[in-house]
Amino acid sequence: MPPVTPPSSTAAAAQPADRAASQDAFTRLMGLVSEDLEAVNRLIAERMASEHAPRIPEVTRHLVEAGGKRLRPILTLASARMAGYDGHDHVKLAATVEFIHTATLLHDDVVDESEKRRGRPTANLLWDNKSSVLVGDYLFARSFQLMIEAGSLRVLDILANASAVIAEGEVLQLATANDLGTGEAAYLQMIHGKTAALFAAATEVGGVIAGAPEAQVQALKTYGTALGMAFQIVDDVLDYGGASANLGKNTGDDFREGKVTLPVLLAVEAAPDEAARAFWKRVIEKRDQRDGDLAQALALMAQADALTGAETRARAYAAEAREALAAFPASPLRGALEGVVEFVVARLN
Amino acid sequence: MPPVTPPSSTAAAAQPADRAASQDAFTRLMGLVSEDLEAVNRLIAERMASEHAPRIPEVTRHLVEAGGKRLRPILTLASARMAGYDGHDHVKLAATVEFIHTATLLHDDVVDESEKRRGRPTANLLWDNKSSVLVGDYLFARSFQLMIEAGSLRVLDILANASAVIAEGEVLQLATANDLGTGEAAYLQMIHGKTAALFAAATEVGGVIAGAPEAQVQALKTYGTALGMAFQIVDDVLDYGGASANLGKNTGDDFREGKVTLPVLLAVEAAPDEAARAFWKRVIEKRDQRDGDLAQALALMAQADALTGAETRARAYAAEAREALAAFPASPLRGALEGVVEFVVARLN
Repeated sequence: MPPVTPPSSTAAAAQPADRAASQDAFTRLMGLVSEDLEAVNRLIAERMASEHAPRIPEVTRHLVEAGGKRLRPILTLASARMAGYDGHDHVKLAATVEFIHTATLLHDDVVDESEKRRGRPTANLLWDNKSSVLVGDYLFARSFQLMIEAGSLRVLDILANASAVIAEGEVLQLATANDLGTGEAAYLQMIHGKTAALFAAATEVGGVIAGAPEAQVQALKTYGTALGMAFQIVDDVLDYGGASANLGKNTGDDFREGKVTLPVLLAVEAAPDEAARAFWKRVIEKRDQRDGDLAQALALMAQADALTGAETRARAYAAEAREALAAFPASPLRGALEGVVEFVVARLN
Repeated sequence: MPPVTPPSSTAAAAQPADRAASQDAFTRLMGLVSEDLEAVNRLIAERMASEHAPRIPEVTRHLVEAGGKRLRPILTLASARMAGYDGHDHVKLAATVEFIHTATLLHDDVVDESEKRRGRPTANLLWDNKSSVLVGDYLFARSFQLMIEAGSLRVLDILANASAVIAEGEVLQLATANDLGTGEAAYLQMIHGKTAALFAAATEVGGVIAGAPEAQVQALKTYGTALGMAFQIVDDVLDYGGASANLGKNTGDDFREGKVTLPVLLAVEAAPDEAARAFWKRVIEKRDQRDGDLAQALALMAQADALTGAETRARAYAAEAREALAAFPASPLRGALEGVVEFVVARLN
């Protein structure tokens, strides 16, 4: 089958905000919670210390200071403030969320045998897998200590449930890896666990700690879930360069690992003939890959409108996230949280 | 240096209870909490399930049903009942403690690259390291969900702190592995984290959930800590066959891994000459081991009374554990908990 050209990026053209404006929206949100965020950063530095095992802060610092966006803790801070919170425990919860995220990254890199994270060598490569496993465990335990300090059993429940769903999602990902029979429902289940569950917990606990009315708490949960789903689908689309074919240096990482993501699922569903089905079986299930296979995969995706289709789903989740915010009156914080939705999908442009 | 014969087992001769009688004591304790233990086993089976990821119960079942003694959850059940508890939440806490223990074993086997656990192939060997890491994470999260259900912030605090100390102890063990400069204080710190912290939490939460007076809660914590310290030192002595030289099939595992345990530290401290010091440096620090080295190590330990010295320390912790129980009136449960102390040290006989 000859390679075909990528589809025109109609979905991208329909996108209202451009990339620079969206980056501004995220910067605006950071600005609105900057004092709280400083407090979160101080708390993280304080709690990642260990009296007896200096290896712990070494490994943690490598990851925490690697310039992550702090998107999840910022969501907690902004959610709590938008819901009218004027105390300080949201800082603890935001640090909790970042610790859970960091612990997950440490264990992920061991499981995926990754060598790079945020452009730097991973901890499992700089130290060893053992350190990554054990320091991750330490951060999980520290996150529980922190959330207990906030003193709310409902908050504890939400974050403990999120931790269980995250781990379950990771095991599910392991079990469905390289399995083309996965299906879209299982994929959505998996990315809910892998990404959306922590986004949802991050925003929901903000509302709970603020004592917001139940409808607003549920709206924050919906916002976080939908934002997280959009975030992960966009990531999975970008791994194939996006519908507008921005081939970056990480293009094809998922492909090489034989990951069954939405673009692959949609392309397999719409495979035009037996040869295409055999191709996907070989490269994803058997992981038997040769020169030119990525180009062939991109061609089949283009033919199937797979990337555009995945983008459409991401934008639907983004719309759901924006709509959920209607439970709150208009305010600079609400505007900035709407802007973060744009920020997430504008990466496609 | 010629090999010398092992020392006569004077410490073992001073031991009051023999091995069979101590086994009876443990069976007696199990009998006293048998109904509660049944409930714990049912709860564990229920909570290790996963709707979406069947791999989770597969891996967990392999370990949970491998015939562990359930020592830690039994301690929680017995502590709560001895402190007068007549509710049901101690069952949740006992299951919590077993989940934390199981999660730790899964991660330990990855970190130690073990191939056998309780006489069976380890999960990391049967499945893979990835499954062990992620299923361990899932069990940690499940343990937090369970402890939250008991609804006591103080209990949460104790168990979250124990989890942090356990992880810190594991990292410490990693950082001091093969380092003869470790010192006895660092060794004690390490085994406190690795073993005693969970024993202590297991017994302390029993007292807290029962609403026992503070002096009794502290006594239970002391009992658990001292019992755990004795337990780990005995394990470390048995790895060299014990002072009475019961060379079993696992003898020398720690030696081959170059682990710096108490017998090694005491032998190094009392090394008679430069040749002995060079020997320990070669086999432990450089892990350059040859045929006959284990026999040579045993000879040096015998010469230094290292195993007897370690046993003496274990028996001192055992005595501390027994004495702590004096905070409670005599009862069949107290008698059985005293018997468990004998059970732990009688493994040396």
